[in-house]
Amino acid sequence: MNEVILNFAPTGMLPGKSETPHVPLSVSEIVEDVLRANEIGITMAHLHARDEISGVPTSRAEVFASIIEGIRAYAPELILCVTCSGRHANTFEQRSAVLRLDGSAKPDMGSLTLSSLNFSHQASINAPDMIQALAQLMLARGILPELEAFDPGMINYARYLEKKGLLKPPHYFNLIAGNIASAQADLLHIGVMLRELPPDAFWSLGGIGNAQLDMNLLGIAAGGGIRVGLEDNIWFDPERTRLASNADCLKRMHDIIRALGKQVMPAATLRRQLGLLPGNGQYGRLAEGATDFPPPDCNSTTSRD
Amino acid sequence: MNEVILNFAPTGMLPGKSETPHVPLSVSEIVEDVLRANEIGITMAHLHARDEISGVPTSRAEVFASIIEGIRAYAPELILCVTCSGRHANTFEQRSAVLRLDGSAKPDMGSLTLSSLNFSHQASINAPDMIQALAQLMLARGILPELEAFDPGMINYARYLEKKGLLKPPHYFNLIAGNIASAQADLLHIGVMLRELPPDAFWSLGGIGNAQLDMNLLGIAAGGGIRVGLEDNIWFDPERTRLASNADCLKRMHDIIRALGKQVMPAATLRRQLGLLPGNGQYGRLAEGATDFPPPDCNSTTSRD
Repeated sequence: MNEVILNFAPTGMLPGKSETPHVPLSVSEIVEDVLRANEIGITMAHLHARDEISGVPTSRAEVFASIIEGIRAYAPELILCVTCSGRHANTFEQRSAVLRLDGSAKPDMGSLTLSSLNFSHQASINAPDMIQALAQLMLARGILPELEAFDPGMINYARYLEKKGLLKPPHYFNLIAGNIASAQADLLHIGVMLRELPPDAFWSLGGIGNAQLDMNLLGIAAGGGIRVGLEDNIWFDPERTRLASNADCLKRMHDIIRALGKQVMPAATLRRQLGLLPGNGQYGRLAEGATDFPPPDCNSTTSRD
Repeated sequence: MNEVILNFAPTGMLPGKSETPHVPLSVSEIVEDVLRANEIGITMAHLHARDEISGVPTSRAEVFASIIEGIRAYAPELILCVTCSGRHANTFEQRSAVLRLDGSAKPDMGSLTLSSLNFSHQASINAPDMIQALAQLMLARGILPELEAFDPGMINYARYLEKKGLLKPPHYFNLIAGNIASAQADLLHIGVMLRELPPDAFWSLGGIGNAQLDMNLLGIAAGGGIRVGLEDNIWFDPERTRLASNADCLKRMHDIIRALGKQVMPAATLRRQLGLLPGNGQYGRLAEGATDFPPPDCNSTTSRD
């Protein structure tokens, strides 16, 4: 397609100021980076929040609310996706707190990692009951899942969730390549993942570390979107001599997209395609159920089998 | 190759007598099933133990010792692999207890799942520190890892472990297809996994549920081994009208292997190829280090990152 989805991931769980001064951590830094990115041109932003004092990831809904409202004061149409990661805090209450925000603080989308996996130094635990409870709450609250897949099998699990009625199309997937124990930044690995996607799924491709730039090129070449930002890679060059800023990474991708005769997809276009409300005061999807059901019993990681 | 590795998996974590009367659960049932299988012809056995009263999985070393010694009294050359699964009990002490057995109870091999993953109703958590600690203990004790991969990325992690000196070739892999959130029983998924294997790796292919028979055929067709038994599938037919016995499944594969003009690889042949001691009183590999180092701090699932 002629328009490229650009999913901006400015912060993530890991980089701190000691790794790079360019990573935005405070509410105001994140808001400023996203608004600067919006001027350069992005379709959506994938948001993590950090504790203002310690800099470690936080799941506190009020921090997300400040970021979301800060961005929307100036960029009311931009699609905003919040992380529901369990890598730092893994109870359902913690992971779902941000999904209960309302009004101008309501996220359009929330991340939903489709299995447990290992990162380099840590297990990321997303037990089946947890995934299903988060999906159910998103459906009930009218928040579109950002389906995160690190391996082809995770896409199979999304198809299972759709069959169970816990996911409703159209779908949006983040495909992430280059994690040490998951799909590699390799044409066959990515090719198999793309073949697994449900028909008409929207997707962006990201790469961890040096794989980011290659996977961005591959995403464009395969007709999909790209995930760009310091969450996945703090270096500008493969030789790791220059620390990147988010704006640096975005401008480089804009140069490439422009040279290809393509353009970054406007948020309004993707809103329509994903069935999201138009922004400007109306966020997410129309809710599909009760918004206040009791939380399921999914805080144990090894449930029945 | 003309000889097919046949890895016999009689019991597993899940099936109970209420699902099928044919699954062996007690020490004597498991010993009898393995000895019957050895008469039919197998190369190795992958062993799980169950509590004699409740039938639930147990990691108690003395139960494994009874099984191993019971088999070796009549089949001293057969290669015996024990599970080190954390699905039921996930401390290092529990998972590694069976690796500390000695003499005629010492296992030749121990399973090493190469990442965390989700099964249908449960997260299987194998954090990086846990995997590395189990690999280090196996190396020190002279026990060969049975490298369990459910996705291509897990094979990448084995290569990383080899680079760190925690795995020494020759390697043996179990590739398992058809789990809901992992590689599917699909030629492309399996093809990518086979391409990822280190050179000269030995491997067997298993399939979960109805995928077992197809994956066994694919394993033979691709020149590898097969994993057969009630651990992965309790039904004899895809229509699920007839419960299988382990002997039923083995005899069917023998018929196919014979019709192809091939044969099941004798345990002694695979012992030589994997660098295992000859059996008959000498088991596993030569140990490569101190056998009594302190257990690492790997019982937390979300460690540093």
